[in-house]
Amino acid sequence: MSCPLCESPGGTLLWQDALCRVVLADEPDHPGFLRVILNAHVREMTDLPASGQLALMQVVFAAEAALREVLAPDKINLASLGNVVPHLHWHVIPRFADDPHFPNPVWGVKQRGTPHVAPLDLDALLRTALHSRGAGRGSKDA
Amino acid sequence: MSCPLCESPGGTLLWQDALCRVVLADEPDHPGFLRVILNAHVREMTDLPASGQLALMQVVFAAEAALREVLAPDKINLASLGNVVPHLHWHVIPRFADDPHFPNPVWGVKQRGTPHVAPLDLDALLRTALHSRGAGRGSKDA
Repeated sequence: MSCPLCESPGGTLLWQDALCRVVLADEPDHPGFLRVILNAHVREMTDLPASGQLALMQVVFAAEAALREVLAPDKINLASLGNVVPHLHWHVIPRFADDPHFPNPVWGVKQRGTPHVAPLDLDALLRTALHSRGAGRGSKDA
Repeated sequence: MSCPLCESPGGTLLWQDALCRVVLADEPDHPGFLRVILNAHVREMTDLPASGQLALMQVVFAAEAALREVLAPDKINLASLGNVVPHLHWHVIPRFADDPHFPNPVWGVKQRGTPHVAPLDLDALLRTALHSRGAGRGSKDA
């Protein structure tokens, strides 16, 4: 069966290595919305060996740290759902008290219309922040 | 400021150790909905040391494994949000194609009215499954 995360990057590529990639998602309501996408088509975290679980989470936490460094959000939201696309991917979402859904999850009822203002060079700032911390491990170019 | 997860277990206690606890949440639409709650009042995963991040995720993945063993769900959903209660807690949710929100996140638009049928002794089954795997580490009594 065709899988969109096997067939395309899934966003603007910011960082990658052999295990996974970090992309800036196209989510106009939530600038800075990152996804950490496993390169292999695997369904659940417990389908990975412990070493793979740990390595993937290190990248998720590096993405969280990069968002906190660049955007200083009020909260970080982390989620691995995959009900529609069962290929492991983590949503790493900077949340602001004035963002369109806060305090609801981004999948909940919208509260207001205007996204939180983000820097114009957000992708460059996030790419630098991810690379400077090696996305939690060894540094690789996107 | 008062925090509900500092002041109460947050559900039916299934397992605990010095770091965290696993509770069965009171979520009638989603029987088997677990929460892994850090005992300390900490806001973000990147506020924990790397060892604490790893130890907490090992319990999250043990909770996922216990749910898969007991309920064989169609998908597992994992999320750490905390917009309303900024005290680290992971939602570990068994999802079924016939559950009230599938394929939406549980925070999205409801699709149907009837929860997926679960065993009557679900808390006992989950407690046994968590303890048998030591919730990813050393086994402790709830």
